[in-house]
Amino acid sequence: MAPSPLQQVITELTPLLGERITVNDAIREQHAHGEGWMRAAMPGAVAFAASTAEVSAIVARCHAHRVPVVAFGAGTSVEGHVTPPPGALSLDLSRMTDIIAVNADDLDCRVEAGVTRQALNAQLRDMGLFFPVDPGGEATIGGMCATRASGTAAVRYGTMRENVLGLRAVMADGRVVDTGGRVRKSATGYDLTGLLVGSEGTLGIITEVQLRLHGIPETLAAAVCQFPTLEAAVATAVTIIQAGVPIGRLELMDEVQMHASIRYSRLEGYQDLPTLFLEFQGSPASVREQVALVEEIVTDNAGLGFTWSENSEERTRLWKARHAAYWATLGLRPGHYGLATDAIVPISALGELMLGVREDIRRSGLCAPMLGHVGDGNFHTLILVPPEDGGYERALELDRAIVRRALALGGSCSGEHGIGMGKIEFMEAEHGAPALDVMRAIKHALDPLGILNPGKMLPPVLS
Amino acid sequence: MAPSPLQQVITELTPLLGERITVNDAIREQHAHGEGWMRAAMPGAVAFAASTAEVSAIVARCHAHRVPVVAFGAGTSVEGHVTPPPGALSLDLSRMTDIIAVNADDLDCRVEAGVTRQALNAQLRDMGLFFPVDPGGEATIGGMCATRASGTAAVRYGTMRENVLGLRAVMADGRVVDTGGRVRKSATGYDLTGLLVGSEGTLGIITEVQLRLHGIPETLAAAVCQFPTLEAAVATAVTIIQAGVPIGRLELMDEVQMHASIRYSRLEGYQDLPTLFLEFQGSPASVREQVALVEEIVTDNAGLGFTWSENSEERTRLWKARHAAYWATLGLRPGHYGLATDAIVPISALGELMLGVREDIRRSGLCAPMLGHVGDGNFHTLILVPPEDGGYERALELDRAIVRRALALGGSCSGEHGIGMGKIEFMEAEHGAPALDVMRAIKHALDPLGILNPGKMLPPVLS
Repeated sequence: MAPSPLQQVITELTPLLGERITVNDAIREQHAHGEGWMRAAMPGAVAFAASTAEVSAIVARCHAHRVPVVAFGAGTSVEGHVTPPPGALSLDLSRMTDIIAVNADDLDCRVEAGVTRQALNAQLRDMGLFFPVDPGGEATIGGMCATRASGTAAVRYGTMRENVLGLRAVMADGRVVDTGGRVRKSATGYDLTGLLVGSEGTLGIITEVQLRLHGIPETLAAAVCQFPTLEAAVATAVTIIQAGVPIGRLELMDEVQMHASIRYSRLEGYQDLPTLFLEFQGSPASVREQVALVEEIVTDNAGLGFTWSENSEERTRLWKARHAAYWATLGLRPGHYGLATDAIVPISALGELMLGVREDIRRSGLCAPMLGHVGDGNFHTLILVPPEDGGYERALELDRAIVRRALALGGSCSGEHGIGMGKIEFMEAEHGAPALDVMRAIKHALDPLGILNPGKMLPPVLS
Repeated sequence: MAPSPLQQVITELTPLLGERITVNDAIREQHAHGEGWMRAAMPGAVAFAASTAEVSAIVARCHAHRVPVVAFGAGTSVEGHVTPPPGALSLDLSRMTDIIAVNADDLDCRVEAGVTRQALNAQLRDMGLFFPVDPGGEATIGGMCATRASGTAAVRYGTMRENVLGLRAVMADGRVVDTGGRVRKSATGYDLTGLLVGSEGTLGIITEVQLRLHGIPETLAAAVCQFPTLEAAVATAVTIIQAGVPIGRLELMDEVQMHASIRYSRLEGYQDLPTLFLEFQGSPASVREQVALVEEIVTDNAGLGFTWSENSEERTRLWKARHAAYWATLGLRPGHYGLATDAIVPISALGELMLGVREDIRRSGLCAPMLGHVGDGNFHTLILVPPEDGGYERALELDRAIVRRALALGGSCSGEHGIGMGKIEFMEAEHGAPALDVMRAIKHALDPLGILNPGKMLPPVLS
């Protein structure tokens, strides 16, 4: 019997990679899925690349044999981005961890794709700099680029879209392309950086990234405030944004999430009520001004017990609780697993959306706390999926209802988690057939054999 | 003799457009060139569109007959973007001037492509809002999108890249595509908005734009400071940026430019010395903080006579002088015309670049004041082209020397003016052959017949 295309790729790459290309079951199983996504499929093999040159060689061999390639970073995607199709090679970039250059004078740096945001920030801290994009997991910068990640600081600093200056990527045939550069702006040529950011490994495999950095603010203050109703909490958040307060973070947890987080993270002194977590940044005078303005808005909206603190221990405790919300929620229903929704709307529609979603949740009979980046108009519900027949379908139905509401209000089905396989059914409703056709034309032009992460992002054309 | 392709297009469109499609010489002459660009070629005809549907019909007919189409807004481009190839139709969008919606609560608006930034801001002022991107001319929003324009406020608010949320465009075959939307961020699909912004009419013709708006700051203060040397002025600007001051505007004029502007704009009390023009924005306390910090930096760099004022008359007078710099410079050498350069580098390299460029200017024997958006690392020289044989070639040689210096320092040949025809020779040096190939593949996928603004941005492939 002739060797399979993947077997040929393995044979051809073994002289280069040695044990770094493998069909070991445990390693393949690790590369079968991201987080929080139930469907999984093992890759046929896994290759660990140590350099752009190796990524290029690997992709070129896969191209020659038409073997699908799925880039893998830390595996923290929640929408099935890294789950391979049959016979695919999973290309693991997590060993590419060089921080190539930090240019403090220009507030930028260059890193390999496998550097995690935590590792980068650990290196930057002593220089008074930080990289602000903070999705929940210990994600790699390459994966964050590929999914256009954001997080709690996007309200002030933007997402990966705004914080990537340029990158290096391996295209479908193995060619290495450099895009963008180190300048703050440029009017020369198509924005290939922007095209690759958020392309989910379907147009090229990102191997190096030039990032914009920011100075650590002189003063940081955290505040918490609880509200009698969800309406009041959302109205407060919306007013803060509309008033133009340069807020550092602006997160909401509903009363169900607070119930879970108070217990999980031992947040004493709080009630099971809708709650805003805020962070103020700037000079001491600017922070005081922001706090005073926000306190006024809170009071107008019947907020309870607005407290703020520059104490870094208290701040850390609160944000740790925020970041642990996922685990706190899972603790509410042992044996259930979580399905995260990710709707986003223009901020003026956020109240209507969240109140509608609460109604959807009630009707579904499921437990699904709401929390999120309300300063961006973006929030998640973590739907707890009952471990019983039909449980997943009930959760999916709720997810779909939430997306339909968001789209009807001029929103998007994903603020930050991406499409992968999980949201692929909404692409046409959100973008329309003409825009999808343009996306498909670009995909076909840059990956005519369709080997780069096939089955992700772009829905198949139905004949 | 068979009618020409263009003649067939005119015949087919006349029932729809009536006198709005024309071969009138005066109108064709108006559409032969932008500003500040010497080469010109008349379009074969000009069509004035009143709606996206009309743009679609026009482009579809041109597609059917393979007639090149060049979009035309206000004609303020300085790199030859709007100059048509032989036999082309110039598609004028300047009559599409509807401000379709202003959503004050979401800080966004939707406009037709022919709305000028001045008309938009006149409408927004009473709502306490403004659109910050301010290229020199009375440009249209559509043209500003197509060239990824910026201006004096980009240091704080970013360029068109950061301020366009979505758009409507007519593709090469006449299909209408909507991209992006109204949300602040989204992780769904390729960033078609970003791809079209800066595509210079080569991928699609932008007909509607969704823009991000900003609240007019509570306090505005203008400051001016002169310096004994160019080095000191640049070092001050660089330090202000590196210190993280959220400066509103940060512009430099060298001593030659000041000489011209003092006389042209009657700026009394200033000397012919390198000068920084600054604007501070924010709350009163924040503005005072910024001013104090900047004054300290200025003093450290031997700045002379740092003065600032919240007086709006004084502020207007100074910024008017800045915006009139082009005309002031032309006044230095009657009979000469201007060739603007547009280099940009990472801010840490700005001093080296500007001192090198001053040396290039001296060697060239030409008069070429320097001024620009130094907060972004971007500046212009307006080379005064002598009206004599070889004058243009001397100016071009100086332009090329400046670009070579910028590229060698990790910069770009254009911060904001774009490529058009003027900078096309630098595309490969700046982006490299692989990235150019990717751009060409995208162009070919979306405009296989090559009818959209042919000959612009992408250099021809040499066989």
